[in-house]
Amino acid sequence: MGCKQMGKQSIRFENPPIISGAASVVGQKEGEGPYGKYFDVIEEDPKVGADTWEEAEGRLQAEAAELAISHAGLSKKDIRYMIAGDLLGQLMASSFGLIDMDIPLFGVYGACSTMGESLAIASMIVEGGFAEHAMAITSSHFASAEKQFRFPLGYGNQRPKAATWTVTGSGAVVLSNSHRKEEILEKKESEQISAAARAEKGKVKIKGITTGKVVDYGVKDNMNMGACMAPAAGEVIAGNFIDFGYQPDHYDKIITGDLGKVGKDILIDFVNAKGYDISRQYMDCGIEIFGEDQNVQSGGSGCGCSAVMLTGYILKMMEKGEWNRVLFVPTGALLSQVSFNEGNSVPGIAHGVVLERFS
Amino acid sequence: MGCKQMGKQSIRFENPPIISGAASVVGQKEGEGPYGKYFDVIEEDPKVGADTWEEAEGRLQAEAAELAISHAGLSKKDIRYMIAGDLLGQLMASSFGLIDMDIPLFGVYGACSTMGESLAIASMIVEGGFAEHAMAITSSHFASAEKQFRFPLGYGNQRPKAATWTVTGSGAVVLSNSHRKEEILEKKESEQISAAARAEKGKVKIKGITTGKVVDYGVKDNMNMGACMAPAAGEVIAGNFIDFGYQPDHYDKIITGDLGKVGKDILIDFVNAKGYDISRQYMDCGIEIFGEDQNVQSGGSGCGCSAVMLTGYILKMMEKGEWNRVLFVPTGALLSQVSFNEGNSVPGIAHGVVLERFS
Repeated sequence: MGCKQMGKQSIRFENPPIISGAASVVGQKEGEGPYGKYFDVIEEDPKVGADTWEEAEGRLQAEAAELAISHAGLSKKDIRYMIAGDLLGQLMASSFGLIDMDIPLFGVYGACSTMGESLAIASMIVEGGFAEHAMAITSSHFASAEKQFRFPLGYGNQRPKAATWTVTGSGAVVLSNSHRKEEILEKKESEQISAAARAEKGKVKIKGITTGKVVDYGVKDNMNMGACMAPAAGEVIAGNFIDFGYQPDHYDKIITGDLGKVGKDILIDFVNAKGYDISRQYMDCGIEIFGEDQNVQSGGSGCGCSAVMLTGYILKMMEKGEWNRVLFVPTGALLSQVSFNEGNSVPGIAHGVVLERFS
Repeated sequence: MGCKQMGKQSIRFENPPIISGAASVVGQKEGEGPYGKYFDVIEEDPKVGADTWEEAEGRLQAEAAELAISHAGLSKKDIRYMIAGDLLGQLMASSFGLIDMDIPLFGVYGACSTMGESLAIASMIVEGGFAEHAMAITSSHFASAEKQFRFPLGYGNQRPKAATWTVTGSGAVVLSNSHRKEEILEKKESEQISAAARAEKGKVKIKGITTGKVVDYGVKDNMNMGACMAPAAGEVIAGNFIDFGYQPDHYDKIITGDLGKVGKDILIDFVNAKGYDISRQYMDCGIEIFGEDQNVQSGGSGCGCSAVMLTGYILKMMEKGEWNRVLFVPTGALLSQVSFNEGNSVPGIAHGVVLERFS
């Protein structure tokens, strides 16, 4: 089975899991942004009817999870594992938000890269035959994140140009075992492929993953997370090209999580120095999700950011056939209030997921 | 491949990964306890030469990781994935402690159940063919945990009888692809099995896993975590019996993470009510790790507790042939300082790992 392992840090799935359902739930500000019409649910109440910000964030997850399962035409009992994470200490949003799902749970943490991590683990679980269906889900919430990482909202601190705005939202993806490979192996020339395999046409599969390491370039500014994360993203993107033998043109889009405007420039230069020009395909969820007029400085961030852009926009563009091959690279700044107060740098991590449309 | 999936929440590995190396690093108090002689390294300096408690905990992880790799006869570059976690917000000990390993990293969080979660994911990665070798590693530290979850050490608060003492320590396990199954399939009657397969004799394999859900019985006392976790452990243990069709006597030992003295009684009653008597095989790492004279109230806890008891004691007992079949069930209380201060209950989670000795 060693042929699945590509180069130093990648996997190519022999029987790629398909994305059978996805859902995005966002807050009001995200709903008012340029991608508002793509999201499944826009919650006008920032507390989602809860008493605390943390509980509100958990409700976003529960809502996204239920919706993704229904979009997949499944019910809760069909999902064998949930791989869930958020930014809060002890994964409060996932731990409390998903209690009622009654599904075996693996909690994961990779800062804002967590959607990449949860998709990677869910893909391996499905492709390895450990589940027919598994869910990857993450969330973030502006107010719970500010409370935890920065200043009380009531303090009204100023935000520097490099600062990002934590996205309020949750994205959930159901990954399912594809029956394609077996059918293709069994298929005789004259036979039709089954309804199940036909139904996969136009769906998006996870073709592979490139898993990141913790990368520390010594940046200590928690208001400039793009600079902390850009080298981690650059190493994963270049690692993906090397491990799979691809050039940037292989992809219709190369999409990072939340580098923001400052991180974008650093990333493009970083990857250029390794011999790859990704400027044509490059897009960043954090830059896209809010409009110029929304007063968010360098863009959106949080592990909800890439999750809702994936489930709200990217997958829809792929299913429509606008894009066929996408390298999705959620990016994380490994920051805690304690490590920051102790004067530590902010290391970065990123996880690449190769998305491809069945044609 | 569906035959790997057992019942509702378990996997039986067709080609069980073997534990090719393990290491335990503990603090002075753990070293002075009844299992002191079993641990690989006892760090006399609670700060391990670092400036902060969090950095000290990270150093325990780095030390355990290096040692486990060397015990496996491997080098860092052979390890394709690390699955690492700790109790701190944003996994500070893992994020910072493992930077120099330069290995793709999945951060995981399941409170004190994390060693069960990381072993489960690492097993699936190896058995699924995604890596020849993967590492599961966790840590905890008394001082970093008290600082985060309870009171400043200098405050000298009183501890109730039900309280547990967070273990200072890190345990690391290297899981490797077993060549056994293929060899046995290929072997002719007269042939000898290879040196590689022979070397596995006496080693411990991961035969299967039973993955837990978040369970909330409404206990709100963060000084009585055993009561929070016992139902989660009970559901996983009973789930394991049901999914695999086992009776308690199948196992030589059934070992939970850190239920402590209060949690132990609740667990045995809980499982009894489901029709299983586990009192003969039952053991709890938290009860064992400290002596009666060490003033630790209900026992040890933390995701280092089960990790160092596994790597320091349990695996050694199995390799010596004292025990052949063990159900290892690290247990977690999903507690954060924020959720506790907001008046939330403390839900529990537990992850079961079926250990079996190659004979």
